[in-house]
Amino acid sequence: MNEHLKLKLTVRLYSDDDERGFGPGIATLLHRVAEHRSLRAAAASMAMAYSKAWRIIRTAESVFGCKMLDSVTGGKNGGGAVLTPEAEALLAAYDQYCAEVQEFAAEKFKGYFDFEPKGV
Amino acid sequence: MNEHLKLKLTVRLYSDDDERGFGPGIATLLHRVAEHRSLRAAAASMAMAYSKAWRIIRTAESVFGCKMLDSVTGGKNGGGAVLTPEAEALLAAYDQYCAEVQEFAAEKFKGYFDFEPKGV
Repeated sequence: MNEHLKLKLTVRLYSDDDERGFGPGIATLLHRVAEHRSLRAAAASMAMAYSKAWRIIRTAESVFGCKMLDSVTGGKNGGGAVLTPEAEALLAAYDQYCAEVQEFAAEKFKGYFDFEPKGV
Repeated sequence: MNEHLKLKLTVRLYSDDDERGFGPGIATLLHRVAEHRSLRAAAASMAMAYSKAWRIIRTAESVFGCKMLDSVTGGKNGGGAVLTPEAEALLAAYDQYCAEVQEFAAEKFKGYFDFEPKGV
């Protein structure tokens, strides 16, 4: 067994119709919005088209049934966007949930993947 | 909160260089090989090109450092492939590991995602 094998866990939350999902990509975009206080700047920081960023936000709103962004006015850049309290709570819950599942998965890993395979 | 939100967890195992990974797609292909006793039939059952199926098998062998398929000869289809004992053990470990992590994640879900968002 490759002793340096890495574990990567992805948590996605899907709507009933299985078409709209919330996962690591949307979470990263929301973190960037919180950081830059602007959806346009958040998208640019990920080399993502602004129109795509909006589509992603709409997807998240559709999955969770709540508004994700609030407009802010003024400031040197003439306004921007911040996360709604619901989006902040959701993002924090997602992050903490992923961290707890990841920690559990990491703890259990050795119990499952400790056999010695033959070389190819 | 959408009460019918579904959880989907993906477990991937990556090699050191982060380029080669073992996940649900490879696991499904291996299950199909075990079922059909043929890589060609397994690939066809997933509408996958035979050449792609071989690349995926090579990736899995590279990630885990062991042979995945053994040739079998004879039978009405003139030979085929079965999983090596190492591949069988690995696939069983992966399935059981995913199931345990999924069960834990499902148990913890409500504790994180029980808030009431506003309507859009």
